Amino acid sequence: MIECWFDFGSNYSYLSLMRIEQGAALHGVSVTWRPFLLGPIFKSLGWDSSPFALQEAKGNYVWQDMPRQCRKYGLPWHHPSQFPRRALLPTRIALLGEDEPWIGDYCRRIISMNFAEDREIDTVDAVSEALSELGLPVDKLLREANDDSTKQRLRDRTQQAMEHGIFGAPTFLVKGSMYWGNDRLNEALAHAESTSLREALI
Amino acid sequence: MIECWFDFGSNYSYLSLMRIEQGAALHGVSVTWRPFLLGPIFKSLGWDSSPFALQEAKGNYVWQDMPRQCRKYGLPWHHPSQFPRRALLPTRIALLGEDEPWIGDYCRRIISMNFAEDREIDTVDAVSEALSELGLPVDKLLREANDDSTKQRLRDRTQQAMEHGIFGAPTFLVKGSMYWGNDRLNEALAHAESTSLREALI
Repeated sequence: MIECWFDFGSNYSYLSLMRIEQGAALHGVSVTWRPFLLGPIFKSLGWDSSPFALQEAKGNYVWQDMPRQCRKYGLPWHHPSQFPRRALLPTRIALLGEDEPWIGDYCRRIISMNFAEDREIDTVDAVSEALSELGLPVDKLLREANDDSTKQRLRDRTQQAMEHGIFGAPTFLVKGSMYWGNDRLNEALAHAESTSLREALI
Repeated sequence: MIECWFDFGSNYSYLSLMRIEQGAALHGVSVTWRPFLLGPIFKSLGWDSSPFALQEAKGNYVWQDMPRQCRKYGLPWHHPSQFPRRALLPTRIALLGEDEPWIGDYCRRIISMNFAEDREIDTVDAVSEALSELGLPVDKLLREANDDSTKQRLRDRTQQAMEHGIFGAPTFLVKGSMYWGNDRLNEALAHAESTSLREALI
């Protein structure tokens, strides 16, 4: 099992969300989805936005790196005209669906709107479109997303991320080991596979 | 040709300095060594040390990541009891030797003292040991390293790094393309190879 901690506003999360289910299947491991918000974590470090927005040189680099990485993985890429994008509503919906069979498709659809289609994602329109394409009960899910209990769940989740020592996204947790960044997805999957094989041998 | 911008105090520079000459040979490209100091760049961002020292969660992660990466590459690793280490003298010597045939061996020796042997490197002892192992004129090089012209060259070099938009180490420059981090070394080498082949075809 691999825990995938991600934020829909994070461009490197895009590279991992698009690939993780397929990679996990190849390694015979399951994915546990852990949507959270990076914003409060950045705030706790004294930053009011992403380091890619705050540090000019790093930002310039990232927008040079992303199209190359997308080419490498065969993923579409459209430079986001807004960065980082807020993703409160789609993240609450992801929390509601994180154990459902549609969560992978939903996550890929939402984060593709951000980084392949350059669209706002923190809107009822965007989320409704994603949900209805998947044949899901849009109104019911939107209502639940706006429940106080869901809002609290997202605050708790982000607090848990901090308690795990998570400082960026994507981050993968495998049996107490942490792997930060899309560049470590393959290593995390390989570790998850060998861990589960070792357990099966006991 | 690949430009390798590095800092002897940077742990991810260790992973790249140990591998780049061999990797470059496999790709048929030459290495241009670009020693510089990250400290002034961090200072320009308002930081008085490395982000790995300033951000606790990130630091904790990096010391979990490094032994794994070293295992992957078959490199020795000893957690540095001091981080980041100052490297003024060894960097000035690297500047003097950057076009010499001994530069690769010298860089590997110095950065191994830091990350494989947990030794101070900003000392006459450490640098003398490295130079004499390579059969080089220790006294002459130490004298030249302390010349005002060498000190100015290092300041200029670090200024050039900033002008290139370099914000971390290692950073690889290939014909105007930037690759940041040891995780991008292979991509940078592949790009350097295809660039030189393309030029040969014109």
